[in-house]
Amino acid sequence: MIFNYTINQNDTEIPWLYDITTEDMTWVITSSFMIFTMQTGFGMLESGCVSVKNEVNIMMKNVVDIVLGGLTYWIFGFALSFGRSPLNNPFISFGDFCIDPSVDDPMKGAIYTAFLFQMSFATTATTIVSGAMAERCNFKAYCLFSLMNTLVYCVPAGWIWGSQGFLKQLGAVDIAGSGPVHLIGGVSAFASALMLGPRLGRYDNGIAPLPLGSPVNAVMGLFVLWWGWLAFNSGSTYGLSGPKSQYAARAAVMTMISSFGGGTTSLMYSLIRLKGKIEVIDIINGVLGSLVAVTAGCFLYEGWAALIVGAIGALIACASMPLIDMMGVDDPVGATSVHGLGGVWGVIAVGFFAQNPVPLDTTAGRSGLFEGGGWYLLGIQSLSCVCLIVWGFGVTIIILWIINKIVTIRMELHMELIGADLTEHFVKHGHMGVTRAISAFKPCLDTTEIDHIAAVGLNPAHDAKVDAIQNMTHKRKPKLSKILRNVTSRGNFGINVARKLFPSKKLERRISIKERSARRSVTSHLGERIPTIHLNNTKPGVDVAWID
Amino acid sequence: MIFNYTINQNDTEIPWLYDITTEDMTWVITSSFMIFTMQTGFGMLESGCVSVKNEVNIMMKNVVDIVLGGLTYWIFGFALSFGRSPLNNPFISFGDFCIDPSVDDPMKGAIYTAFLFQMSFATTATTIVSGAMAERCNFKAYCLFSLMNTLVYCVPAGWIWGSQGFLKQLGAVDIAGSGPVHLIGGVSAFASALMLGPRLGRYDNGIAPLPLGSPVNAVMGLFVLWWGWLAFNSGSTYGLSGPKSQYAARAAVMTMISSFGGGTTSLMYSLIRLKGKIEVIDIINGVLGSLVAVTAGCFLYEGWAALIVGAIGALIACASMPLIDMMGVDDPVGATSVHGLGGVWGVIAVGFFAQNPVPLDTTAGRSGLFEGGGWYLLGIQSLSCVCLIVWGFGVTIIILWIINKIVTIRMELHMELIGADLTEHFVKHGHMGVTRAISAFKPCLDTTEIDHIAAVGLNPAHDAKVDAIQNMTHKRKPKLSKILRNVTSRGNFGINVARKLFPSKKLERRISIKERSARRSVTSHLGERIPTIHLNNTKPGVDVAWID
Amino acid sequence: MIFNYTINQNDTEIPWLYDITTEDMTWVITSSFMIFTMQTGFGMLESGCVSVKNEVNIMMKNVVDIVLGGLTYWIFGFALSFGRSPLNNPFISFGDFCIDPSVDDPMKGAIYTAFLFQMSFATTATTIVSGAMAERCNFKAYCLFSLMNTLVYCVPAGWIWGSQGFLKQLGAVDIAGSGPVHLIGGVSAFASALMLGPRLGRYDNGIAPLPLGSPVNAVMGLFVLWWGWLAFNSGSTYGLSGPKSQYAARAAVMTMISSFGGGTTSLMYSLIRLKGKIEVIDIINGVLGSLVAVTAGCFLYEGWAALIVGAIGALIACASMPLIDMMGVDDPVGATSVHGLGGVWGVIAVGFFAQNPVPLDTTAGRSGLFEGGGWYLLGIQSLSCVCLIVWGFGVTIIILWIINKIVTIRMELHMELIGADLTEHFVKHGHMGVTRAISAFKPCLDTTEIDHIAAVGLNPAHDAKVDAIQNMTHKRKPKLSKILRNVTSRGNFGINVARKLFPSKKLERRISIKERSARRSVTSHLGERIPTIHLNNTKPGVDVAWID
Repeated sequence: MIFNYTINQNDTEIPWLYDITTEDMTWVITSSFMIFTMQTGFGMLESGCVSVKNEVNIMMKNVVDIVLGGLTYWIFGFALSFGRSPLNNPFISFGDFCIDPSVDDPMKGAIYTAFLFQMSFATTATTIVSGAMAERCNFKAYCLFSLMNTLVYCVPAGWIWGSQGFLKQLGAVDIAGSGPVHLIGGVSAFASALMLGPRLGRYDNGIAPLPLGSPVNAVMGLFVLWWGWLAFNSGSTYGLSGPKSQYAARAAVMTMISSFGGGTTSLMYSLIRLKGKIEVIDIINGVLGSLVAVTAGCFLYEGWAALIVGAIGALIACASMPLIDMMGVDDPVGATSVHGLGGVWGVIAVGFFAQNPVPLDTTAGRSGLFEGGGWYLLGIQSLSCVCLIVWGFGVTIIILWIINKIVTIRMELHMELIGADLTEHFVKHGHMGVTRAISAFKPCLDTTEIDHIAAVGLNPAHDAKVDAIQNMTHKRKPKLSKILRNVTSRGNFGINVARKLFPSKKLERRISIKERSARRSVTSHLGERIPTIHLNNTKPGVDVAWID
Repeated sequence: MIFNYTINQNDTEIPWLYDITTEDMTWVITSSFMIFTMQTGFGMLESGCVSVKNEVNIMMKNVVDIVLGGLTYWIFGFALSFGRSPLNNPFISFGDFCIDPSVDDPMKGAIYTAFLFQMSFATTATTIVSGAMAERCNFKAYCLFSLMNTLVYCVPAGWIWGSQGFLKQLGAVDIAGSGPVHLIGGVSAFASALMLGPRLGRYDNGIAPLPLGSPVNAVMGLFVLWWGWLAFNSGSTYGLSGPKSQYAARAAVMTMISSFGGGTTSLMYSLIRLKGKIEVIDIINGVLGSLVAVTAGCFLYEGWAALIVGAIGALIACASMPLIDMMGVDDPVGATSVHGLGGVWGVIAVGFFAQNPVPLDTTAGRSGLFEGGGWYLLGIQSLSCVCLIVWGFGVTIIILWIINKIVTIRMELHMELIGADLTEHFVKHGHMGVTRAISAFKPCLDTTEIDHIAAVGLNPAHDAKVDAIQNMTHKRKPKLSKILRNVTSRGNFGINVARKLFPSKKLERRISIKERSARRSVTSHLGERIPTIHLNNTKPGVDVAWID
Repeated sequence: MIFNYTINQNDTEIPWLYDITTEDMTWVITSSFMIFTMQTGFGMLESGCVSVKNEVNIMMKNVVDIVLGGLTYWIFGFALSFGRSPLNNPFISFGDFCIDPSVDDPMKGAIYTAFLFQMSFATTATTIVSGAMAERCNFKAYCLFSLMNTLVYCVPAGWIWGSQGFLKQLGAVDIAGSGPVHLIGGVSAFASALMLGPRLGRYDNGIAPLPLGSPVNAVMGLFVLWWGWLAFNSGSTYGLSGPKSQYAARAAVMTMISSFGGGTTSLMYSLIRLKGKIEVIDIINGVLGSLVAVTAGCFLYEGWAALIVGAIGALIACASMPLIDMMGVDDPVGATSVHGLGGVWGVIAVGFFAQNPVPLDTTAGRSGLFEGGGWYLLGIQSLSCVCLIVWGFGVTIIILWIINKIVTIRMELHMELIGADLTEHFVKHGHMGVTRAISAFKPCLDTTEIDHIAAVGLNPAHDAKVDAIQNMTHKRKPKLSKILRNVTSRGNFGINVARKLFPSKKLERRISIKERSARRSVTSHLGERIPTIHLNNTKPGVDVAWID
């Protein structure tokens, strides 16, 4: 994302952010659209990783992330990273709050394009945390956190990518955000998991992972993220005009090669660790770890370097998951390992393997240690890591500490055991231990409301109908055509409206005749003409009838 | 989609529809591809909203929508909207049926591009209805409706977007189709739901919504639609050349901001209505409502306006769902509220908030009421709504009335209770009350066919094998290696073909020797050489054996 | 994909593969990204088609396909198809192994773009086979096969698309790979299914298909593939510059029209075959068959031709599925019918229906038989089919035969019956017969490891907690606020680290005080101040407490 192709840049000129040709715009906007699809991936991955009784809750939190995270990014996030203002300083910028150029602004196309692209990055960054807080975070507290989380992301994004940012000034290189997006997201995830404490009983039987809720959905999420990542990295050439076009495809190719390295490594890791078997979460997080790792220098690497960067990224992600658990920090999807530690490696890897991508000045002419560029780049990349970690950890802790004063961030005990899907969203899963948990709490909790909720996927109204049919068919064996639906009861809009507008006996009589004829027409559809209709139940609303 | 950038346009010149540069083509074609992904979203959303026993049926109906809806759009839909012909009049156009320019046509690139883009819109519009007809519509009647549904969409699309259309002539503005796509789709959904009547027993326990079938899939559908919508609206700049590029990103940004407004509003709505809890369908339909609302004027709005348009759209969608139910009209996914009423608001909102997007003449130089443009635009937008509602409602009723004469549109009673997945597609879901419903109908229905269907996800053939193994291992405790698979029975293509071609005793003897050696080689794979093989069952096809 | 727009091409000039303008690059890279999304489609389709106890296993195999298939394509696949080397001959090319142009190479943009596009094709081709090997192939053998499978694809891809290829020289036309991608994939699938033998008991009850695992996921997979296919075919114009832009949209339109033809045909086929009902797999494979069929000549057809090509493709795919089963070859997803036979028809159809796409020389000026082009094109297309079938079948058989010497390709008997999800990936599905299968094998198999695995979606740790709560609430009825979570046990990172670093009695005492105050603060959150805390269980790690 860091392109200073126009070298003679000063305050009166167009900032690099808005220096986009029409050709670049196609590329950047299309990439943004594809980056947004990563939200689908995060949702499926996270909901596939948690226990079923919380799967809807985590999807809702993902929606909240986009809605509230996106809203605050528009209101103040973009402003603090890239705002144009005389108050700007190396640490933060102030300007362009609620950015919205007028129709007279000749640069409005570029500004909207830049904002769209940055917003797609911001929502990705803020979503990373949701997985680490899964299954035990209060929903309302999470909403507050989503509002504030933008702050965690946007300030360090300004350091690395804003024209004024001190890390950018020093020469830090992070093309598509191993640092501001993933490292920050992962560190923030770690801090959140730490603050929330582990899920109830998480470590009672050691640190072995809990069963996934839906491994197929989780792998599907990996796939969606994988292809979205191509646009994430490749779109970060920030255009295709001139020499940028030389590197867009390279970014994509290196992203894929890195994931091949990561995938192979995690396969080996899992095969060795489990004596010939494969754990799904190892593969998912291995591949993701390699994608995170290659992000910072995606088009600066040669093939072999990308392969190594990915392999090490995957190894870090896989091997650190049990370590995080040993610390007693419960991160259900492994966001700390994948995004946090994978991100650290990604930022530092630039210092080792980056080539100088002539004629672009992405690296200000510098190269990594192994490419003969000396220690400077490695140093500044390491410094970036330290700054980002300190910021990400500190600010997340502070925000959550404040929120905890307003709404307890931890879910209540009974909600955690019953599951947030039922207690927050009225979604009752069958065969998932939910009913048992409810009955355990019955003596001290009013469960009348949730007792009456039908399980997902069922049609409770049909049960009564099936009972009625069973009664009918049990006694005698009628022809199928003799069981008919009372089509008219509540089914006819006109009649219902008429009934409400003109409640009279005369109308009722007319309707009654109409209903009978409707019933007869249904019967004739069923192939017979029947003389009398005996409704086995004359209460209104009962709509299974029996014809003699 | 309404671009008259070439102002001096007359009958001998290129119509706006085909006035596309190569650069525009990249944009329009790419957008079309992304718009088609919305079909995945509709499918997942709808199948996630219905009860499990109908989830496959609704997916099949979505496939039918695309296949038959797309086919008829090619045959006559495009022709009635945009056909070039001397018979064209302000109400309808006649020409370019089965559009297919020859390789000699210099404009063929533009024509195919335009048709592709319009087709992606048409299939979206026709799919909207499927949700409202879910769980009770006869499959064959639905196929007929899919064929005819194109008619409901294409005529009003011509009014608004066709060069000859009377609403276009009057100055109606609808960039990406809040009107022809969503309003029409939603009104058509309402009419269909009204004609079909509510699902059996739907309102026996009041108007509280039935449980969703798979809330995770439904939210995933929302996500897929959301990102597809970006291309839907942004692609409707109909290119990126010249000043169009100034507005493409604005369309996307305003679409997102509107959805932030809508998402926030629906969160608040649900939290207040349910005293601190969140219902999934509120959030889904709130976000979708805001997306529908912003569609008509996506790049004409300022940020604050988009936020308000989205918020009101979401509120309309959420708050009207129970009202539709109170009318006794059963719309399982809320298409009437989201697309119908959301679409009405979307079309009218242009009259309030639209800016004049200089230098484009999208609005013919007009602005909305709040942008100082006076009442004209609001008037013509309201007129458009009335015209579209009348057409959409009337034609849908007529089409369904005609179809009902050919095939009863309502599913038969027993099909509805057993579920269409089993009765139409041989898909039997376990633990979903299906078996109980079948047994209720047993006395009057021949269920032998469906009784023998195994439940989804099971391998019935394995059950017999497991039984055989259980018998073996029950009596004595053999080593695992002594249970082996009879690899040869029906497994060897060559042998099977030979048996069919040359049925002789000699061949059988040879095969028998071969099979024995194959069996032995398997055994040696298992690590032992065994002298005798006792098949515990000599019937052909039984392929679990026991070696002594 | 076959574009020789630069006609005066010789060895010293840029090969067609790298003759890409910047505008073309946008198109080709964007298409590649969309083509990769087809992997998501294949994964969902295949996992939706197999029995639930193997659904995770097939997803893992899809990941392996991409990772190992992609890696080998980089290492040697691209080299054998398109490498630049003096050793090149009409049969194979040798050069550009591990292709990775340096930053000084002026053509690096084009080279990376070309490689990315070809890689997206290669991974698609290699994934096709995984479905045919589902539910019975050893995981490690499959990994080896993924490594080698690239060889099956890349050599014939060179014949058709490489400048040196003998089929290309003869004038064979295959735009997007009905031949090298689908025919080869399908034939390879057939050979694999043949080598593996049918699933245990597959044909014990005739050739009727087994139940799908998740029909909704399978249809979703179809949708994702469908839209990806648009990029697959349309991207194969290999750019949008100059006259290419005339055909990109045509490719997409014809792809859609073909799928309409295919979808309609498979609907009719299923309705007739099943007397008014629809089988999901018929529709899925019908639509896919039509997409495969149109791929070879996607932008060479007129609308009516595309419709017929698709209809015949669908019919071939649907009608041949039972025939393959009659041969005793068990192809769980029908890859042989869809990709193999559909691919054969696709290649041959070019010989019948192709138009000469002036001014492109895709067909070297030739047309199909029905377009007045005579028999030559039909002949060469048929020859291509024969060459591809022989290669695909032969090489697959040889590779699997060699792998079988290293690792038995067939899963062991007990793994097949218990399901690969549990035996390979520790994923235990509930209600799927898995437990019964395990118990059958108990006498001869050590199942202690898998017995302790909790079922997917459950949180086993919560069960113990629920028991504890039940005990508490059973005896007396406490207020909810009196049941509290012991927040401190293992939940506090700082404390845990301190305990590990300084294990002393003094520290423990301090922690104990801290824990008590933490407990009290939780209690006060719950709204009461309580004098004494009686832990009903003092073992470490038990974190549900009871306050008196």
